[in-house]
Formats: sequence, C-alpha cells, structure tokens
Amino acid sequence: MNLHNNCSEVLIRAATGGDSAAIWKVIEPSIRAGETYTLPRDLSEGDTLDYWFSLGHAVFVALHEDEIVGSYYLRANHAGAGSHVANCGYMTGPWASGRGVARAMCRHSLDQARTRGFLAMQFNIVVSTNERAVRLWQFMGFRIIGRIPQAFRHPTEGLVEAFVMYRTL
Amino acid sequence: MNLHNNCSEVLIRAATGGDSAAIWKVIEPSIRAGETYTLPRDLSEGDTLDYWFSLGHAVFVALHEDEIVGSYYLRANHAGAGSHVANCGYMTGPWASGRGVARAMCRHSLDQARTRGFLAMQFNIVVSTNERAVRLWQFMGFRIIGRIPQAFRHPTEGLVEAFVMYRTL
Repeated sequence: MNLHNNCSEVLIRAATGGDSAAIWKVIEPSIRAGETYTLPRDLSEGDTLDYWFSLGHAVFVALHEDEIVGSYYLRANHAGAGSHVANCGYMTGPWASGRGVARAMCRHSLDQARTRGFLAMQFNIVVSTNERAVRLWQFMGFRIIGRIPQAFRHPTEGLVEAFVMYRTL
Repeated sequence: MNLHNNCSEVLIRAATGGDSAAIWKVIEPSIRAGETYTLPRDLSEGDTLDYWFSLGHAVFVALHEDEIVGSYYLRANHAGAGSHVANCGYMTGPWASGRGVARAMCRHSLDQARTRGFLAMQFNIVVSTNERAVRLWQFMGFRIIGRIPQAFRHPTEGLVEAFVMYRTL
C-alpha cells in the first residue's frame, strides 16, 4: 500500500545551546514586529535568548527538513500552589508559517506537560488580533476564559483586547 | 470644631532595605499558610525578599502607629506591548487585619500606578476562597474578567478556582 502524505513532517526535539542562533532567527521577526508577544520590540539577541532559556523553561525546537523553523518553551505558569498549571510560548519562523509548525509544537507541548504532571495549560495574553493563533488554540482544545480590555498595545491597531486561554490536560 | 476619627491612620511610604526584617514578619505568615499566594510555602526569607524586591518592583510599606503592618509591590504586569497594565501584590500582617491596611495600600497603589502612567491594573490569580480580598478588590473598582478553574491548590480546600481581576485607572 502506498500512503500519500501531503504534509511534510515537523519533528520536535529538546533544544540545546547550539540551537541558539537558529532560535534567534525564528524569534527575532516576531519580536521586531511586536504584534503578538509582550517582549520589548528592541530586545537584543542575548536578552531574548536569556529569557527564552530562563531557569524553569524547558525549550524545544521544531524542525522541517532538518531546518529549525520553530521553538517553544514550557514552564509552570505560577510557583507553589499554582505550579500544576503549565504555560507555553511558541514562535514560528515567518518563512515557515502555514506548514502546521505551531500546531505540531502545541500538540507536543500538551504531551510534554502531561508527562511532567501538569493538570492544565494556560495562556495569559493571547492578542485578539492574532486571529490565526486564537483559532489554532481553540482547535487544540483551549477556550477563552478571560477577556482583558486594551491589554496589548498593537503597533498599528492601538490598544487591543487579549484573551486568557485555558484547557485541562 | 472637634473632628472625631474612629479609624487609626495607615501611612504608606516607599520601602528601604532597612525595612526587610519587618516586611518578612508581615509576609511570612501568608506564605507559610499557602492560602492566598502562589509563592512556595517553604520559601526562605532571603528568596522571598529577593522576589519582593525584584528588579522592576516598586515596594511600599504600610505603617500603623509607627509599626510596619503591610507591604506591597507595584510592577508592570507584562513587558513591551503589555507594559501599560500594572500589577500589585499586597500583604498585611495577620495581627493587623481588619484595620483597613489592605484598602489603604490598594488606594495608594492605584494613585502610584496612575502617576507612573499605567492605564489599568490587573491581578492574575485571586484565589476564589479568599473572599475578603475578592470583595475588597471589587469595592476598589476591580471586576472579575476571567475565571480560571482549579487554578490554585488550596491546602485544605484542594484545587479551587481563581479570578483574573481588572480595572482601568
């Protein structure tokens, strides 16, 4: 039987220090655009990677045809009595969008979070104008449990709403 | 005219390093009880004060009859495009509860946040069983904009809901 697969495979593995330059290449465009994350738009490569690889972040990379095209971190959203809820940040290189990279990373992160004993996952500030992400997270089982008015200063849209999104694991 | 005032006054001022021991005395009981904050219950004095005085935290103390009975920090809830929303953490020494200390700190923090140019204030994880705090924040103009199921592992109640609370400034 000859299986036909239209989707090129996305592979996910744990990141190493040697991936830093490739991760920066993935992350930098999103930081500079300033439309989706609350990292300062002028954040340096060093400060960005320090943040990405913060203590308590498990960092992964997504590969497509042996090239790093995405990265995400998984962490506890809070310490102590809130440490059973996971949080993630995902970035896809803009040249690789539309290939299911974010979806693959999210699926991987849900498995990782379950394996590590987390009971739920929460995103704290999903920008409402990032409609593609909102739809993807909903597809992945997250629901909007909070709406924060004017939470995000979008570079062209001004102050826009953001969502708290959540799912159990 | 003889004005009569039943309320002993609560004074708020910026904290200094010399206040650390008194702040720890205020904070420690709440951390050890583990019913309201997501700091680890066994967090040491040094780690707690490092957190309380984190870079980016403006720290204040509340005094009642020259004794430090409360402390709070004010910070940006997010960096970059989310940095116009403030966040605070308030602690009152259990021996001083019921004297309006938290209310005075909250009022002070709203003024401070306005002065510093913040446009709104958000609390990320108000434990639902902390009914007194929820009522106080509502009295101070905050509303519940999100409900996080099973967000907080309460030492006697188990996994309980927490609220995202928000107000404009």
